Amino acid sequence: MSQKEKISDTVISRLTQYHCILGDCIKTGTKTVTSFLIAQLLKIDDSQVRKDISILNNTGKSRVGYDVLKLKEAIEKTLGFSNPKEVFIIGAGNLGSALAKYNDFEDYGLLVKALFDVDKEKIGKNINNKPVLDIKELPFFTAKTNVEICILTVPKDNAQATADFAVKSKIRYIWNFSPTVLVVPSGVEVWNENLMGNFLRFSYKIAK
Amino acid sequence: MSQKEKISDTVISRLTQYHCILGDCIKTGTKTVTSFLIAQLLKIDDSQVRKDISILNNTGKSRVGYDVLKLKEAIEKTLGFSNPKEVFIIGAGNLGSALAKYNDFEDYGLLVKALFDVDKEKIGKNINNKPVLDIKELPFFTAKTNVEICILTVPKDNAQATADFAVKSKIRYIWNFSPTVLVVPSGVEVWNENLMGNFLRFSYKIAK
Repeated sequence: MSQKEKISDTVISRLTQYHCILGDCIKTGTKTVTSFLIAQLLKIDDSQVRKDISILNNTGKSRVGYDVLKLKEAIEKTLGFSNPKEVFIIGAGNLGSALAKYNDFEDYGLLVKALFDVDKEKIGKNINNKPVLDIKELPFFTAKTNVEICILTVPKDNAQATADFAVKSKIRYIWNFSPTVLVVPSGVEVWNENLMGNFLRFSYKIAK
Repeated sequence: MSQKEKISDTVISRLTQYHCILGDCIKTGTKTVTSFLIAQLLKIDDSQVRKDISILNNTGKSRVGYDVLKLKEAIEKTLGFSNPKEVFIIGAGNLGSALAKYNDFEDYGLLVKALFDVDKEKIGKNINNKPVLDIKELPFFTAKTNVEICILTVPKDNAQATADFAVKSKIRYIWNFSPTVLVVPSGVEVWNENLMGNFLRFSYKIAK
């Protein structure tokens, strides 16, 4: 547990990228991978990769590299993929639909149980076998399922009111894709996706 | 220029969140904002906000706080929003469409000029007044417009082949939303959106 708390956001982010590469290795039948290859693909330093991997247990390290399956498992255990999390998507527009169709989520232990929307045209339909439900029914479904995590993809102008309603409906964790800063009571956590911020970090480098 | 290179990814990310709050202030008619208020909204430390803002010029700082308009402008100048970038979206599915409809992009100097797809059903349509074009025509349009940035939202299994084609078509910067690590020649830069990594950084905290 103490080890767990020590892993920083940037290391978690890199570990998920290594995990992604390992998935590709499995597809192509590659059994062993070196830190050098991973570093080259991600254009980062070899020693950084080795340092990140050194915090994991049972990585299947040998003279010729890491065992692909074991290293993948080690990342999954450390990052808790094996402990699946059920979520609701609030907002069944393009972004909500895209996320509902993102089957990779399940491999990472994120299970989208349903989408919620206000639009009568969308309610009652299915997106990737997940039902689109009336947002009014959210309190009923959180009570029934104990889902505490939502992915918020509603338009910016409705984001705060929707977040307020989600919190009232016992949602405790909000993954926020709306480009607005939400005000939530203590005890509720928000993770702002901040897509524009991500783009600016990228475009800032282009401008140099 | 030397100052510019010093701004780290995490500071850029926070500055864009301050910018977002300032936008909300303008809407509600708030003229002055304190570092304390910003810190409270983002649940971060007051001194961190002041430190981040200290790298900007002309923030309109006074005894009672920062001038909202001036601080917003200062962030825009420092992060180069005033230097707009034209981009193509490759993949006009749900995610591509969501990003094409994301009007906030324009406020941040990101101008989506067109979408590209292989799907005959989509080609010829408009999404948020942006044309959906045949991917085969990408080389023609990059040559005509000098657009060098693309947002890649194609399915994972087509991502590498599409990236290869984009690079051949003179795309130099790829904002990659596909959950796969792309192999690109030197001289081409990839920014991996890594949505799963972002979620895991969030869910990792939930698991604690």
